[in-house]
Amino acid sequence: MKDVTERTGQEPSKQRLRVWLNLLKINRGIEAELRGRMRTEFGTTLPRFDVMSALYRHPDGLIMSALSSMLMVSNGNVTGIVDRLCDDGFILRVPVPGDRRAARARLTPAGRQEFERQAEVHEVWVAELLGGLDAQECAVVLDLLTRIRMNETESHHV
Amino acid sequence: MKDVTERTGQEPSKQRLRVWLNLLKINRGIEAELRGRMRTEFGTTLPRFDVMSALYRHPDGLIMSALSSMLMVSNGNVTGIVDRLCDDGFILRVPVPGDRRAARARLTPAGRQEFERQAEVHEVWVAELLGGLDAQECAVVLDLLTRIRMNETESHHV
Repeated sequence: MKDVTERTGQEPSKQRLRVWLNLLKINRGIEAELRGRMRTEFGTTLPRFDVMSALYRHPDGLIMSALSSMLMVSNGNVTGIVDRLCDDGFILRVPVPGDRRAARARLTPAGRQEFERQAEVHEVWVAELLGGLDAQECAVVLDLLTRIRMNETESHHV
Repeated sequence: MKDVTERTGQEPSKQRLRVWLNLLKINRGIEAELRGRMRTEFGTTLPRFDVMSALYRHPDGLIMSALSSMLMVSNGNVTGIVDRLCDDGFILRVPVPGDRRAARARLTPAGRQEFERQAEVHEVWVAELLGGLDAQECAVVLDLLTRIRMNETESHHV
């Protein structure tokens, strides 16, 4: 069996670095594009969309710390985002029984409806931006990304 | 030929959304890990490392706007970062001939040395965090990511 460097013309660590830099670039490019479209189309931001998405998946609501840990986009100021979504009538704060200081954030019916409207278009955009991949290639990418994540979890806090 | 939904059990747009959400998660996880290690090991940040990396690849220096557009990590306050790297003796501002108000940022010899020291360890970390992929899988990922990027560029500003 040939040496890895010989087969690929690159040291393995250099090649993994290239993978990482490409992941960063793609992430940055797609996020910038989605950010612009969310602003133009819905007058909203990715962190706002992200907060609504997490709450949509948890109809009973989430306390702030749970919400923070769930966000896909950089957290930003979650409390501030929730405050503004409350002002807009998309989120309601409900008391947590047995803890007078805590509150769960929950989507209002208007919030659920608004999120569904945004999510539908967001999905079309993502499908368009990732349109270079067909179904089989998507499956391959998903498989390889899962492998990275499993290994990454093992490598954490070494 | 079978319908895509039939073959994969998912609508194509749902599958591409899954790819995107996985890209986001991986990006977020690896960045968080690298951020922590850069701070602990070198007392530095990813945007600082990123600025030094761009300048390392441009030994003649870069004006601020060129530097900003080149950064991989979110830009942050590039001017502020450059100011602090100047204070640390890692960057020098050199005048641009014919434009009295402009200046190029350039790494000092100490800056080049410090970046090399950090980059070497950074590469080892990335290789470890992406250790779940062998050389062939890296090549497959790179190929598929390139396809996303090419399509993404076409989809921009539609």
